[in-house]
Amino acid sequence: MTRTTKRIQIFDSTLRDGAQGEGISYSVTDKLNIVRALDDFKVDYIEAGNPASNPKDMAFFEKVTKEKLHHARLCAFGATHRKGLTADKDAGLKSLLDAGTPCVSIFGKTWDLHVEKILRATLEENLGLIYRTVKFMKDNGKEVIFDAEHFFDGFIRNEEYALRTLEAALSAGADLLCLCDTNGGTLPGQIKDIVEKATVRFPGAAIGIHCHNDTGCAVASSIAAVEAGAVQVQGTFVGTGERCGNADLSVIIPNLRFKMGYSCVGDDLTGLARTVRHICDISNMRVYNSKPYVGDSAFAHKGGMHIDGVNKVSASFEHIDPKEVGASRRFLMSEVSGRSTVMKKLETVAPDLSRDSPEVAKILETLKNMENNGYQFEAADASFELMALKTLGRFSPHFRPIIYRTSGEYPPPAGEFSASAILSLEVDGKEETTAAMGNGPVHALDNALRKALRVFYPELDVVRLSDYKVRVLSGAHATAAKVRVLIESTDGDIIWNTVGVGTDVVAASWEALCDSLEYILHLRRGNRQ
Amino acid sequence: MTRTTKRIQIFDSTLRDGAQGEGISYSVTDKLNIVRALDDFKVDYIEAGNPASNPKDMAFFEKVTKEKLHHARLCAFGATHRKGLTADKDAGLKSLLDAGTPCVSIFGKTWDLHVEKILRATLEENLGLIYRTVKFMKDNGKEVIFDAEHFFDGFIRNEEYALRTLEAALSAGADLLCLCDTNGGTLPGQIKDIVEKATVRFPGAAIGIHCHNDTGCAVASSIAAVEAGAVQVQGTFVGTGERCGNADLSVIIPNLRFKMGYSCVGDDLTGLARTVRHICDISNMRVYNSKPYVGDSAFAHKGGMHIDGVNKVSASFEHIDPKEVGASRRFLMSEVSGRSTVMKKLETVAPDLSRDSPEVAKILETLKNMENNGYQFEAADASFELMALKTLGRFSPHFRPIIYRTSGEYPPPAGEFSASAILSLEVDGKEETTAAMGNGPVHALDNALRKALRVFYPELDVVRLSDYKVRVLSGAHATAAKVRVLIESTDGDIIWNTVGVGTDVVAASWEALCDSLEYILHLRRGNRQ
Repeated sequence: MTRTTKRIQIFDSTLRDGAQGEGISYSVTDKLNIVRALDDFKVDYIEAGNPASNPKDMAFFEKVTKEKLHHARLCAFGATHRKGLTADKDAGLKSLLDAGTPCVSIFGKTWDLHVEKILRATLEENLGLIYRTVKFMKDNGKEVIFDAEHFFDGFIRNEEYALRTLEAALSAGADLLCLCDTNGGTLPGQIKDIVEKATVRFPGAAIGIHCHNDTGCAVASSIAAVEAGAVQVQGTFVGTGERCGNADLSVIIPNLRFKMGYSCVGDDLTGLARTVRHICDISNMRVYNSKPYVGDSAFAHKGGMHIDGVNKVSASFEHIDPKEVGASRRFLMSEVSGRSTVMKKLETVAPDLSRDSPEVAKILETLKNMENNGYQFEAADASFELMALKTLGRFSPHFRPIIYRTSGEYPPPAGEFSASAILSLEVDGKEETTAAMGNGPVHALDNALRKALRVFYPELDVVRLSDYKVRVLSGAHATAAKVRVLIESTDGDIIWNTVGVGTDVVAASWEALCDSLEYILHLRRGNRQ
Repeated sequence: MTRTTKRIQIFDSTLRDGAQGEGISYSVTDKLNIVRALDDFKVDYIEAGNPASNPKDMAFFEKVTKEKLHHARLCAFGATHRKGLTADKDAGLKSLLDAGTPCVSIFGKTWDLHVEKILRATLEENLGLIYRTVKFMKDNGKEVIFDAEHFFDGFIRNEEYALRTLEAALSAGADLLCLCDTNGGTLPGQIKDIVEKATVRFPGAAIGIHCHNDTGCAVASSIAAVEAGAVQVQGTFVGTGERCGNADLSVIIPNLRFKMGYSCVGDDLTGLARTVRHICDISNMRVYNSKPYVGDSAFAHKGGMHIDGVNKVSASFEHIDPKEVGASRRFLMSEVSGRSTVMKKLETVAPDLSRDSPEVAKILETLKNMENNGYQFEAADASFELMALKTLGRFSPHFRPIIYRTSGEYPPPAGEFSASAILSLEVDGKEETTAAMGNGPVHALDNALRKALRVFYPELDVVRLSDYKVRVLSGAHATAAKVRVLIESTDGDIIWNTVGVGTDVVAASWEALCDSLEYILHLRRGNRQ
């Protein structure tokens, strides 16, 4: 399927167009971390902000232009100069120069409606703005990408005018003409046709593509444009952006590489999943499970037939080898997945059980009942193993919780924690009662539990919780609704996940906390008799 | 842009392929509710389960075939019969007949690799299985859709054999040949080429398309197949499904209708957003914000320029009128959105303020600081209005919280609530102290707050919380992490949303609860002096 090794440039706008996404807000440190991650992944261009419209962006350019980047070129984004001024008098263009980046992207209007109704200029005036702005930037030594805003809507309504705006930019020396589907409403077939027409009209010019996802087709439209001759794809690394987001580079890059045989970024994409997770972490978003290539479910198999198939020939139900993008195959536990998955998971805890044994049937039954009550073990392997051992009667606990009591107050005492917990537990007939403070009852309980167990199991000192998630299972009962708590723990060596469910968030957290500590004790010390 | 009014059939597999998605588990009631919602939306086919592989599905067919549907035809899904049997002796086919649906979808292997390695049959044997299975179903009076599993992978590797499997189904009387990209790895261009070749080979045959989203192109591939002649699109209503999901019908339908001019479902799509929310609610998933057409952000505008543009000419930044799909335009509040959005929101609470007034600058500053601390007002309009009034010094509270104390315990006393709260608050110099029990400290506090306020404001009796969401803002500090609580409230007449933030989930919930009740008092009674 390799057609060519032609290289496609990747232009990332996470920090500019991506920052327009709902719920996105980056600190300066966040932004620097994103720049470093993108540079490590070898993207070609990083559009780092809009210095004229946002003073915080200007402050950021001062810092980021001091970074030593190994691969990426930094780019600052801005508009054509204002009507009635010369380019050298325009404050926006001055900010763009002050940003100090080797590259600038200049957006200009190409849709006659926008020129007349939004910009309120004549069509000829707008051509002059584009020409003079690009020329001014070239005269100042910049690499210039012309972002043809609303190009596809403009082309459909007034083809000749839209092409003339490109001509104005090109004749002023623009290095690349990026065709933008700003409203995101154009379908891939039409994107392809129009890009082809632009390449025919400007045969020597480098063409780029910038899509939004309003029809759910931004990835397909971007690769359709590449098929039509585009050499640069603009997007955001994890698909963030205004409305439905920008074209998702983390999906486009493996499509270009593995499905179409193009060369892009560093060609080795084994760091893809890690980079996506890192950028999502910084953006305070989760990587959604079904995300192509890198989501937790992307290579997860639940249907019994699929699992049997993958076990026989992996290509039979996987479109690429997950290792190529740094992802991994998973088999999900659930009543639908059937025995195969559960057997696979039981290999470590009860390798002696046969597929048709009554014990396995009992575990499947317990699994089903707990799932009906809101538990999910797909993301809580450790709790699944403990459940299996308990169901088999092979589990003897390392500690037995007796009681806890939590209390919280408002306003919090000055400089102190707002909550406290006392608890009693028993190990080998010895009872330990202790208490601790915390930020809220869950934190207090977590602190108290470790404090009590440390007396018996000093190795728990290295265990820490690395993630804590609360999901309300049904909105219908509001504050009395059932919640599912997922806890991720680590001892610096391995990571494990546990789950708790209940109508009381404190009790559900307690269940997941106890499972977490019990699991690692079980793993390191084995069963107690 | 209307090309034709040709009708495209919509085939929904939410209950079959969709149920394979990670985290999806439907009760019988859930399934019936989904069938009703799909029928109301006038989809053509509802694939309701796999009776042979799942006894729960069989139980469901008994119920659902008694439903009176107004538009949709029910379909049961199953495999070709087993090797070494005749069709009439096959238990799977018997279950399919027992399901009692007018239509069946029969999946058969079309990829030689699968026939030989997974099915472990000869290529000729497999053709016989397909022929005899389809024939058996036709002889039993069923409408038969042949699902050509892995058709695209099969076609690319052994074109002639893949086409012969279709021929076997067609000659046995199959009503429609559905070409499935089971592994989801084929790009739209290739899908289109191959569908075209199938329509050329079988000119009179009805062709369908079934895509998965592993390359992020399932929507684009489905519409490319329609361009190539397919008359049926299979998918799941909100895109659920194994791995990266099935083709998302809620995006494909408006693309077919508004962008390509086809006729499908009821043609009137104003119920789209409501149907998506309803199916997501039943599936216990949220509608992700950036979901095309119906996500909360799909017509949300944040960048100042975009907002100014939409205010001037809505088509300038919107690809369709949101009303066409039952969605609505939103202007987001945030430091990036600039003054325009904040001014728009202030119209109701402080219409006297001018854009450049120091008061507006102060509100913007407060907004920015609170956003930095983890607040988000995009989904909490009521808290925004209270914040604005407080910042302007125009807010006088209807009650003043003095203290609260919560306590929780484990194990919960038999048959009783696990938590209790006491609180004091003051209204007009009168102090009220009360206490209540609850499922967890938040519920107890909610009950106590209403109880205390009812003394002064009996109208609060009709207010109830309709949703409660907890989001952990950073996983880094585990149980000590900061959380954001969003509460939706209603008095049966209107709905409003409030937010609270803190490291203590109880305190953050308290903040959002107080805002909720304060907001409705303010709205109904006006400011107190």
